[in-house]
Amino acid sequence: MRPSGRKPDELRPVSFTRGFTRHAEGSCLVRFGDTHVLCTASLEERVPPWLKGGGKGWVTAEYGMLPRATHERTRREAASGKQSGRTQEIQRLVGRSLRAVVDLVALGERQITLDCDVLQADGGTRTAAITGSWVALFDCLKWMEQRSMFKTWPLKDHVAAISCGIHGGTPVLDLDYPEDSSAGTDANFVMTGSGGIVEIQGTAEGEPFSEATLGELLALAKKGIGELVAKQKEAIA
Amino acid sequence: MRPSGRKPDELRPVSFTRGFTRHAEGSCLVRFGDTHVLCTASLEERVPPWLKGGGKGWVTAEYGMLPRATHERTRREAASGKQSGRTQEIQRLVGRSLRAVVDLVALGERQITLDCDVLQADGGTRTAAITGSWVALFDCLKWMEQRSMFKTWPLKDHVAAISCGIHGGTPVLDLDYPEDSSAGTDANFVMTGSGGIVEIQGTAEGEPFSEATLGELLALAKKGIGELVAKQKEAIA
Amino acid sequence: MRPSGRKPDELRPVSFTRGFTRHAEGSCLVRFGDTHVLCTASLEERVPPWLKGGGKGWVTAEYGMLPRATHERTRREAASGKQSGRTQEIQRLVGRSLRAVVDLVALGERQITLDCDVLQADGGTRTAAITGSWVALFDCLKWMEQRSMFKTWPLKDHVAAISCGIHGGTPVLDLDYPEDSSAGTDANFVMTGSGGIVEIQGTAEGEPFSEATLGELLALAKKGIGELVAKQKEAIA
Amino acid sequence: MRPSGRKPDELRPVSFTRGFTRHAEGSCLVRFGDTHVLCTASLEERVPPWLKGGGKGWVTAEYGMLPRATHERTRREAASGKQSGRTQEIQRLVGRSLRAVVDLVALGERQITLDCDVLQADGGTRTAAITGSWVALFDCLKWMEQRSMFKTWPLKDHVAAISCGIHGGTPVLDLDYPEDSSAGTDANFVMTGSGGIVEIQGTAEGEPFSEATLGELLALAKKGIGELVAKQKEAIA
Amino acid sequence: MRPSGRKPDELRPVSFTRGFTRHAEGSCLVRFGDTHVLCTASLEERVPPWLKGGGKGWVTAEYGMLPRATHERTRREAASGKQSGRTQEIQRLVGRSLRAVVDLVALGERQITLDCDVLQADGGTRTAAITGSWVALFDCLKWMEQRSMFKTWPLKDHVAAISCGIHGGTPVLDLDYPEDSSAGTDANFVMTGSGGIVEIQGTAEGEPFSEATLGELLALAKKGIGELVAKQKEAIA
Amino acid sequence: MRPSGRKPDELRPVSFTRGFTRHAEGSCLVRFGDTHVLCTASLEERVPPWLKGGGKGWVTAEYGMLPRATHERTRREAASGKQSGRTQEIQRLVGRSLRAVVDLVALGERQITLDCDVLQADGGTRTAAITGSWVALFDCLKWMEQRSMFKTWPLKDHVAAISCGIHGGTPVLDLDYPEDSSAGTDANFVMTGSGGIVEIQGTAEGEPFSEATLGELLALAKKGIGELVAKQKEAIA
Repeated sequence: MRPSGRKPDELRPVSFTRGFTRHAEGSCLVRFGDTHVLCTASLEERVPPWLKGGGKGWVTAEYGMLPRATHERTRREAASGKQSGRTQEIQRLVGRSLRAVVDLVALGERQITLDCDVLQADGGTRTAAITGSWVALFDCLKWMEQRSMFKTWPLKDHVAAISCGIHGGTPVLDLDYPEDSSAGTDANFVMTGSGGIVEIQGTAEGEPFSEATLGELLALAKKGIGELVAKQKEAIA
Repeated sequence: MRPSGRKPDELRPVSFTRGFTRHAEGSCLVRFGDTHVLCTASLEERVPPWLKGGGKGWVTAEYGMLPRATHERTRREAASGKQSGRTQEIQRLVGRSLRAVVDLVALGERQITLDCDVLQADGGTRTAAITGSWVALFDCLKWMEQRSMFKTWPLKDHVAAISCGIHGGTPVLDLDYPEDSSAGTDANFVMTGSGGIVEIQGTAEGEPFSEATLGELLALAKKGIGELVAKQKEAIA
Repeated sequence: MRPSGRKPDELRPVSFTRGFTRHAEGSCLVRFGDTHVLCTASLEERVPPWLKGGGKGWVTAEYGMLPRATHERTRREAASGKQSGRTQEIQRLVGRSLRAVVDLVALGERQITLDCDVLQADGGTRTAAITGSWVALFDCLKWMEQRSMFKTWPLKDHVAAISCGIHGGTPVLDLDYPEDSSAGTDANFVMTGSGGIVEIQGTAEGEPFSEATLGELLALAKKGIGELVAKQKEAIA
Repeated sequence: MRPSGRKPDELRPVSFTRGFTRHAEGSCLVRFGDTHVLCTASLEERVPPWLKGGGKGWVTAEYGMLPRATHERTRREAASGKQSGRTQEIQRLVGRSLRAVVDLVALGERQITLDCDVLQADGGTRTAAITGSWVALFDCLKWMEQRSMFKTWPLKDHVAAISCGIHGGTPVLDLDYPEDSSAGTDANFVMTGSGGIVEIQGTAEGEPFSEATLGELLALAKKGIGELVAKQKEAIA
Repeated sequence: MRPSGRKPDELRPVSFTRGFTRHAEGSCLVRFGDTHVLCTASLEERVPPWLKGGGKGWVTAEYGMLPRATHERTRREAASGKQSGRTQEIQRLVGRSLRAVVDLVALGERQITLDCDVLQADGGTRTAAITGSWVALFDCLKWMEQRSMFKTWPLKDHVAAISCGIHGGTPVLDLDYPEDSSAGTDANFVMTGSGGIVEIQGTAEGEPFSEATLGELLALAKKGIGELVAKQKEAIA
Repeated sequence: MRPSGRKPDELRPVSFTRGFTRHAEGSCLVRFGDTHVLCTASLEERVPPWLKGGGKGWVTAEYGMLPRATHERTRREAASGKQSGRTQEIQRLVGRSLRAVVDLVALGERQITLDCDVLQADGGTRTAAITGSWVALFDCLKWMEQRSMFKTWPLKDHVAAISCGIHGGTPVLDLDYPEDSSAGTDANFVMTGSGGIVEIQGTAEGEPFSEATLGELLALAKKGIGELVAKQKEAIA
């Protein structure tokens, strides 16, 4: 039995609030249950130095957590003077995931930055961040389309992410914080709308896991990501 | 005529959403028009080193702005590795303002940290932060009262803040971003519910101003802060 | 009775030693009693990036305190690796104050940096820094005038600063350290030679203060700044 | 055809030089072809603060790359003042991987730090670091055993790691730098001697990959890790 | 001919102003011609961690240069966030030099910090800093003696420092800035009152130098340091 | 008697392994007994900003120590976020020493960086670093010569370095760690192949030393450096 009463293959309630803030070209507050992440997409007419003059654009991400998004207050990274290894890992993952579905040549020589700021955390912030960023990115590209900023629509597919893990011996979908902190094995999956795998990160927190377990987690993830993509489609309809 | 069509002594629509996030002992999303600040109050059973063993508590504040709270994206302070002078000025001001209405002995040897994070900015983020933090602090103290953590209620009065300035030659109340960026003179006032002055910061951006102008701005501020305190009272009713 | 035996409206002995160091275009050791600040004005043929090509110049300031300027040794900011919030607040204030009396177009596209280094501290270092920086800036502009570096004299007025506060229930002028550390209310005023207000920063350290008190402090400040401007005039005569 | 002429499922020549440096309790220079990593295991009689008094030990890792380990000189992280996101990701991975095979209670309340410093890089530095660290850790534990520092041997199994990827459409084992920089899909596998999975990190650099591809890469990894574990056994025999 | 018209073995005018600032236990403004360094000695009742409980004291130094002490303004180290290699070299040298003449056991378990801040620079700031610090240290120890803080006078000897170099082919004493920047060989000598060598640092900026040259520079240094020690004796008389 | 059983004027076994790593234009593992330093020379087609356009090249150095090169593990400088004063002193010394024998005009407008990384430390790391860097630099210049990158061979002479000190009252050559940590006086000498002095750094750790002692140490150094230069010649033969 899961602490939340959910079935093993059941997602938390998921919602997308588009236009949550007004200045960004795209903005979306995504909720995976009690995990709330504000994703904004900011367009800038510049690219990183190593891309200058190549005609290609760039999509990148930054991640942050408000100090009291968590059960106990955590130190503000701006005050401690550096981003933790965890923060850097997550923002690199979000950036790679979104780039996997963007045609950077079609985008043109400009950069879109996805800022993912966790307002409230209850496990799965990185998967919510990826899934919500796709909506913010979509709105940013729509904003550009209205201004005829490209010829070819640069978004090739949906992308979404979910965590799976072994809780009390059972493979379960979309871990919340109580499950995440006690899970023996924890894996994050990033997949496209057409079912391609973009990223897998699986870790045995306690005992090593078997190939069979990996297969079960992957099956759960495919189901969950299918549902997330359906919700993205509703949200942008 | 003000860009927003407001009268010279008219506040923007103000609202307080209590309990915006669930982990903090007190939390409030305050809105001054399009300026939205999430204020959380976090209780910790420790005090800064210089207060240890003295039987007194402490109230402090930290301030941050999400990178795309602004018209143009600004650099994330956690990524640049330090808090700007502006950020430090504001968080010191918020902390002093709240301490002015707290009986630190009644609080007991513990610390409350007010985190003020700007989700969307349209001028006046520091005044909204102070005004909203009072509500978050109130809720944190209520949480403590329910757990019988003190004998005497430590909150001595309301505190709220507003900006005033000269726009197009006229003294106006509660500057929004278009007014703020063009104002000749800009002043922030922090006052208590009973009308005492906690802090005045007035700056002549262009021409120096006169004592008479200071008087006009102060009169506007008193009116505005009176209305803000009334709204705080409604919010906690 | 004030610890120093001064009358409530009496400044400490004030002096300006021009040319205290020889390399700077302008340099002045200012003394407000036992508070000694070395102010130097350095001319550079460049402006900050955001002003490039606009034909306007810039005036900025930096502030530092020698580790043993104070009663107890304080940590060297260069060793701790960052400037404190207090340092940043002060240097921003000094820069704004001086810019208020400089015609930046007349100055031309160049920058003057005022370095204010406290050799000995006894309260009021920021007000001494502003008042002394005006003299260093004057000498720097004279140096430029001798080299025909501008057509119009860019210094529009004097600027000086003083602190006032409530000590033992009485409003007093020019707080020294013993007064400053026990004052209930503390305000810094920056005003021009012609009596315009450039900046007011008033803080209730303990009880909030009234509009009447603000008026009394302002009256003291006007008297004190009048005397400081007279001393500046003597110094450059 | 692979640039090196290797068969798709062929490892580079692998060697372990035990005792490469003399001060560390365990030290091993591991070579995967032209990738050379010096791994040292340092024993300290202390644990991180959050483990104090709990009777459990800790195993952690740090990773570095000499500036000219690479084709082009890269900036020294000590000079730039921070460790990159990549460095932090790798050292967190190495630490997790080794902890997966250590009985931290049997180790007792002390810490072993594995320092992995890349002397020469040709792709796969993180997998070499994990594989070589196991040997350094083994020698450190032998050193402790000789001094009767624990009752139960704390090393539960071997652990080793290898990368796989799609090169020119073919799944290949143990990518070297030319393959790594052109691979469409890249995955790192960490597995135990008994075949359990400790960590999987798979990334689609270009096109998303399928579940079938994941299966092929995993099969290659199992073969490779089996060979690496056999080499570890030879090395410590 | 030297730029200053001095004879090869002639020091610049040297003076010591004791008690230049009032808070420090010892303070001295030392002038070697146009090089002016403020040296303060601060007593603290603590020692570095590695000396705790050992009954020995410590003497250390910090060095700084005001931004406009130099011909061109240099960046403030507190603003750039770190002390340069040059600063660290000098402060380590000053600390070692003073420790060479202090009986750390007689001092007792306390620390004296010598802060050497260059108000104006014209070459030889490190030698002036050492020579002036000795006077500040002497005054600090006198202050302690008056409070009966030790049984045995801890200062074993004088210590002073001077630079020598080859200018225009001739060995000269006490290089000023124009000489220093063009000197082929530059050496700093630290010696005690009784003629013992504490530190030699000689560098060939251009051509390597011979043993004979080293001898000539050492002879000059002995003469110069003899004169400096005589001046120290006058100053404390 | 020396701890190692060496005669007072006897070097430790010295060896140079050229080409220890393959990417650098020059690379050498130098061993002075148990002190092992990896020196690499990296060529870059750029110079520091202050040399741009002047037709001259630059030679610089960086120094690092692997955390467990030492008896006890020391903190990784990349993790602590800054290079120690000792590290900076050494890398400045290595750079100056090598520049003393390079014709920077003949080198042309490019930079060679010598990275000296200590794999194992037993005293004398800076002298080994200088002596080994000369070999790496030689190989880098040979690499350039094969590509006809200059007209005149830019290396004017050999340069090598050795430490000397007083151990148990006797002047000894090439201190190892046990001697270094107990030596009363410690001096490092850098000299050219033709016997010119490039740098002397002598420090009295305890009692000041005499001119006669300096002479004895210098005599030892000349002998030792002569032998080191002979070994360099063998190594490049």
